[in-house]
Amino acid sequence: MATRSDPRELGAPLAQRLAATRALTLALAQPLSDADAAIQPFPDASPAKWHLAHTTWFFETFVLRDAGVAPYDDRFAYLFNSYYEGEGDRHARDRRGMLSRPSLDEVRAWRAHVDEGLDRALPSLGPGALALVELGIHHEEQHQELFLTDILATLAANPLEPAYGEATHYPGTAAPLEWINNPDGLTMIGADPATPFAFDCERPRHRALLHPHQLASCPVSNADWDAFIADGGYTTPTLWLSEGWDWARREAVTAPLYWREDGTYFTLAGRVARASAAPVAHISFYEAEAFARWAGARLPREEEWEHAAASDDPASGQQLDHAAAVIPATKTGWFGAVWEWTGSAYLPYPGFVPEEGTVGEYNGKFMSGQMVLKGASCATPRGHVRASYRNFFPPSARWQFSGVRLARDC
Amino acid sequence: MATRSDPRELGAPLAQRLAATRALTLALAQPLSDADAAIQPFPDASPAKWHLAHTTWFFETFVLRDAGVAPYDDRFAYLFNSYYEGEGDRHARDRRGMLSRPSLDEVRAWRAHVDEGLDRALPSLGPGALALVELGIHHEEQHQELFLTDILATLAANPLEPAYGEATHYPGTAAPLEWINNPDGLTMIGADPATPFAFDCERPRHRALLHPHQLASCPVSNADWDAFIADGGYTTPTLWLSEGWDWARREAVTAPLYWREDGTYFTLAGRVARASAAPVAHISFYEAEAFARWAGARLPREEEWEHAAASDDPASGQQLDHAAAVIPATKTGWFGAVWEWTGSAYLPYPGFVPEEGTVGEYNGKFMSGQMVLKGASCATPRGHVRASYRNFFPPSARWQFSGVRLARDC
Amino acid sequence: MATRSDPRELGAPLAQRLAATRALTLALAQPLSDADAAIQPFPDASPAKWHLAHTTWFFETFVLRDAGVAPYDDRFAYLFNSYYEGEGDRHARDRRGMLSRPSLDEVRAWRAHVDEGLDRALPSLGPGALALVELGIHHEEQHQELFLTDILATLAANPLEPAYGEATHYPGTAAPLEWINNPDGLTMIGADPATPFAFDCERPRHRALLHPHQLASCPVSNADWDAFIADGGYTTPTLWLSEGWDWARREAVTAPLYWREDGTYFTLAGRVARASAAPVAHISFYEAEAFARWAGARLPREEEWEHAAASDDPASGQQLDHAAAVIPATKTGWFGAVWEWTGSAYLPYPGFVPEEGTVGEYNGKFMSGQMVLKGASCATPRGHVRASYRNFFPPSARWQFSGVRLARDC
Amino acid sequence: MATRSDPRELGAPLAQRLAATRALTLALAQPLSDADAAIQPFPDASPAKWHLAHTTWFFETFVLRDAGVAPYDDRFAYLFNSYYEGEGDRHARDRRGMLSRPSLDEVRAWRAHVDEGLDRALPSLGPGALALVELGIHHEEQHQELFLTDILATLAANPLEPAYGEATHYPGTAAPLEWINNPDGLTMIGADPATPFAFDCERPRHRALLHPHQLASCPVSNADWDAFIADGGYTTPTLWLSEGWDWARREAVTAPLYWREDGTYFTLAGRVARASAAPVAHISFYEAEAFARWAGARLPREEEWEHAAASDDPASGQQLDHAAAVIPATKTGWFGAVWEWTGSAYLPYPGFVPEEGTVGEYNGKFMSGQMVLKGASCATPRGHVRASYRNFFPPSARWQFSGVRLARDC
Repeated sequence: MATRSDPRELGAPLAQRLAATRALTLALAQPLSDADAAIQPFPDASPAKWHLAHTTWFFETFVLRDAGVAPYDDRFAYLFNSYYEGEGDRHARDRRGMLSRPSLDEVRAWRAHVDEGLDRALPSLGPGALALVELGIHHEEQHQELFLTDILATLAANPLEPAYGEATHYPGTAAPLEWINNPDGLTMIGADPATPFAFDCERPRHRALLHPHQLASCPVSNADWDAFIADGGYTTPTLWLSEGWDWARREAVTAPLYWREDGTYFTLAGRVARASAAPVAHISFYEAEAFARWAGARLPREEEWEHAAASDDPASGQQLDHAAAVIPATKTGWFGAVWEWTGSAYLPYPGFVPEEGTVGEYNGKFMSGQMVLKGASCATPRGHVRASYRNFFPPSARWQFSGVRLARDC
Repeated sequence: MATRSDPRELGAPLAQRLAATRALTLALAQPLSDADAAIQPFPDASPAKWHLAHTTWFFETFVLRDAGVAPYDDRFAYLFNSYYEGEGDRHARDRRGMLSRPSLDEVRAWRAHVDEGLDRALPSLGPGALALVELGIHHEEQHQELFLTDILATLAANPLEPAYGEATHYPGTAAPLEWINNPDGLTMIGADPATPFAFDCERPRHRALLHPHQLASCPVSNADWDAFIADGGYTTPTLWLSEGWDWARREAVTAPLYWREDGTYFTLAGRVARASAAPVAHISFYEAEAFARWAGARLPREEEWEHAAASDDPASGQQLDHAAAVIPATKTGWFGAVWEWTGSAYLPYPGFVPEEGTVGEYNGKFMSGQMVLKGASCATPRGHVRASYRNFFPPSARWQFSGVRLARDC
Repeated sequence: MATRSDPRELGAPLAQRLAATRALTLALAQPLSDADAAIQPFPDASPAKWHLAHTTWFFETFVLRDAGVAPYDDRFAYLFNSYYEGEGDRHARDRRGMLSRPSLDEVRAWRAHVDEGLDRALPSLGPGALALVELGIHHEEQHQELFLTDILATLAANPLEPAYGEATHYPGTAAPLEWINNPDGLTMIGADPATPFAFDCERPRHRALLHPHQLASCPVSNADWDAFIADGGYTTPTLWLSEGWDWARREAVTAPLYWREDGTYFTLAGRVARASAAPVAHISFYEAEAFARWAGARLPREEEWEHAAASDDPASGQQLDHAAAVIPATKTGWFGAVWEWTGSAYLPYPGFVPEEGTVGEYNGKFMSGQMVLKGASCATPRGHVRASYRNFFPPSARWQFSGVRLARDC
Repeated sequence: MATRSDPRELGAPLAQRLAATRALTLALAQPLSDADAAIQPFPDASPAKWHLAHTTWFFETFVLRDAGVAPYDDRFAYLFNSYYEGEGDRHARDRRGMLSRPSLDEVRAWRAHVDEGLDRALPSLGPGALALVELGIHHEEQHQELFLTDILATLAANPLEPAYGEATHYPGTAAPLEWINNPDGLTMIGADPATPFAFDCERPRHRALLHPHQLASCPVSNADWDAFIADGGYTTPTLWLSEGWDWARREAVTAPLYWREDGTYFTLAGRVARASAAPVAHISFYEAEAFARWAGARLPREEEWEHAAASDDPASGQQLDHAAAVIPATKTGWFGAVWEWTGSAYLPYPGFVPEEGTVGEYNGKFMSGQMVLKGASCATPRGHVRASYRNFFPPSARWQFSGVRLARDC
């Protein structure tokens, strides 16, 4: 199960991890038709094909170009750059669903070509280039999760409710909620300098101050959420942040995304009965916050969560081992199944310095209007998970496997 | 070349025409990938696959259902009803591009199934049902033209500018513009009751009054339009209708749709040099109107145009004979190459009575906010053309093969 | 009561009519506070103060400027030009409610100044300038009606429902509907060349062809409209034009504008019980069209209406005699109480030539996207009314005193 | 100058402060016409009259109602409730500019009536009610600042650029920027429990951890901002947060709000030459953040700022002493002239508990999508200022007197 690199083995393992990562992306695309892979369900989500292409563009641009390798097709940089201003003009984000060409097969051919180029180039790359390969692997792992959440949104937009695949993980039984005492006082959070890889936004490791509090032993379940709905959770304005209430009215939100009124929900495995013990997913920060207020609790702060999770094994919990139609299962630890909204805004850590060069646009430029999520989900590639990881989305985002764990002051 | 039915031959020829029509639609889809056929370039245009499906739904619903044939898939009616309120709920028009399933091949299989059903049912259909088959053929011919204009918009939305096919018709040389004296006084317009088929909006044939005027012998050419642009046509507000000027500013319109700044335009055959003698196409009513004012002229009225064209052969001119990447060619008569905007609003004729039943929603409900176009275009199936034909689009529409011919009072 | 000029009396009467017109506008503003006069209830309506200022700007610009009189305040032209592109840049239409200065009193002072200037200039003006004074009078009369409809919209936007004044006209009893046979065949419509004044869009007088039809003897009443609502008029899509149905859904339209659910409506005299025999007002073209379909009838064509009304006295009927809180009363003739939507689009007459110069932007540039209304309303200044008058508004407009009369083919 | 209450004097001083506060609001309205006071320049700003009315509604609802006093006008609660869901339905925020009635004078009369009621009720109020009077005073002080920023926006929307008054404060000379060493380690922030008044969001006082850093001795000046612009600050995407860049493009932002291209800016005293040494104002968080990146610095964190300012006198600096057309002047301390954007999101403090009852909707419900500003501005009533104060606005807000001070890690 452990695909995580050992810090002592940078070099040969990099090539292996690169190959495994590239292969997993291809495997994720295997069940899709050319048309499935072309659809953009809404502007913040991308077509599956785009993820295949963009991750390839990343290696071609930031690794192969500097290694003197000519691009496969000069026109692809314009189409598949995501947001790197330093890399020139690019196709409008909300028009990614207009691209029937290159076809899914043509993108696969490009991937193969770039994979061969990387294979050839790898032995002679210097440390800077190797660091970019490492970054590219983690970047592609992120897009693997987005691949699954975006194709879920794509298939959900079709009244025929087609399934991506057959369910391979399934919810277990619930453990009773307990309140865990987390210590207060000073702690350290952020990525350890000795860690083989971390994104710039996780650094530097720094002191943080914890105030007296407790954390729930498990996230909020679908059954808990049913109780919230039954108690008027979505119709009681005083439970909500003002912005959240306006959002819920405007978007007519009355349940988590993909819930149907008949006790089912739409999943990668199609429409199935909701697992009541499994953690609720596909909720926004606004909904998480309203639920916490209703429950007489609050959301954990990033540092509280990270401190508590630091001693847990990041490889534990339900994560993505191979291409599959994953559905969140019961979660007993800190990682996997669903990401957990925190009450912390996504802002720079003390002493934060963005990565150098164009890739430095990677995280810092998104540090406004977003909230941090911690943990990992059933769609996070196993090996991509660590306590210091800072996932982030706007407070209204629901198409991720986003859930919530309660906290309270004490 | 003449595929038009003879009024004396309703019966056997109907089956032949039905087969030919259904075959042409399939042929139009032949060059497309599954993804090409799934994309909706903007809300008023539909995916190619949707046209294949909707025309099939029409026959299944209005012909086979009454013949007692069960639908191929119960879920398709919801997806592929266009706007018939009488036929129940339907998929939102602006979400037609979200349907990767059914796939293009699955839609083809449905078509084949319905075609067989029609074959079997045809011999025993009564006159009412046969009239609906006739209507279905003409309905499908309309969608053949939309198929081409919509796929042109789809491919144009891709920065790679893929071609639908190779050009098969090509612009000839221009004839000099002459002013033709059309008589004034009373005339008759509208579909002749003896005509084998006409849409309800073309009826009844009725008297119309012509005022002294002249019509141009040919439509405005690309070269003429270049002169309009060079003379500040798009930057002189007093040439424009107020609504048109606001539209042109808001949409940043500075040339016909698909024109590129380097003397080329994007066509079904890809990006090619503009043919200066060919009629300008892909202009809105607003642009046509501004051009006419600039030229010291006006747009023809529907009755003027129809009277003048009545003696011309509707089968003349460049029209769609078989699936091809058509481009407007030089036009000497009244039909083909480009539709011609008139100055007439699309309103009911004196004595207009809508078709009975759900199909009666067909034309009457669109009689506001639209202008009439006459003639036919290079994408109009040959045989679908007649002088009484009333095509209509909102004044801002540009993705049709829409051009303009000048008129003047005298 | 008759304030209409006699064609033989152009000269002295012009000064009198000018004074009377300018005085009426002032009188209309008398009940308003500075704040009342500053509010713009929605982008297509203007603040009361703006009407006072714009009509003054018209005379200052098109008459006094050419007479060599310097503008009162150089900055006002920018603020109070409506849409004359030829007169340079202007304040954005949807920002007219941002102007607390100049105050209502300052605008009154400007009016007085311009009135004195006109008084002084009038004796020495040539025929061209006198024609512009004439045009300015009629232009100001149009704005008097808009003044009332816009202040009605302004006061209606206030939950306190303040009245503009006390009701001075009140609905009488209804006459039973009769169907009047209008002749068919050729007739003449448009402004008579001998008429003392007409807008360019009413010209030239020309032949028009009538088809066999009948017109109702009176417009549709509030009681009739209650029956339409009770019969599901607003919830039956097949009664509506497609565009109208979408509009009614989007805007949540379920009754005429200003109707309240308790049998009252908001009027210039405040909220009062609806007069069931009085003609329905504040309906859109879309609603008029749906009502007519529901009633098995259609809307009159412009030429049918004009032919029928030609022999009626335009001074008859309930029109605006002096500043008052008018409400539509029962109507027996063709003029007054409510404007009547026709089924005719507002398009140029055969041989139409716009007025020369900047004032020529006056009517022609609005000839798209609008429908013609005929007659006059309770807010139309008496003397401003004639059978050839072409009022026009977009099909969704409801804030005018717009009603409907039925027609039918026969 | 010191109008701040002494904690030992709650009682008599409360009545004095109440009277002084109510009088200042009236004085602020003195220069305005009825129309000036009615205009809402954009949905997030309110008409001046609305501020007068809403602050009165607050006392009538939360103090007088519980003291058994009947409301002055039953209809006003609907009009002048801002966002208290617990107090029932209310007038739409973006329609506040539709209210010409009640007039400015009528609102003044209401104010006088409520002031008398408060006078009468005050002697017999219990501690809970007195706390609400105290809250009402601070609430009204907040609206005094909004009154000035909103009327500035209102007058700025008028091309005539009318002045609110004559300038009474004027910029001095600049001190050179120095970097101040703030200590690192643990500190205490938040309102001292012994403080006579603080909003719930400032509590509880709690430990905070400072990381090594320096703060600038003064805010960024207009001259500094000129240098930023000259160096391409608004045209270099890599300086900006992604969301900020999109905002600046969409809104065409190229300078602080109210700056004109000729070296002037629009102020409450009309359009005047920009004071280059004075702190820049009317910038968004996005602009502040981009400036800091350009300057190789960052924004201060809330706790850094508060720690540094704790020892400064909150009554120092340019603040609002009486009704005046204030303009930011040179600032040497921490308070006054301009609010300073921090890099901290507006989120609940550890242990935060909202105020009980409807007034508890006051702050907590806005804790998403907003950034904290510290200090005070030239429009903040003197006495309303303290180091623990947490002002907050969305990152795009510019109509406040919002500036920026730099910080840097060390």
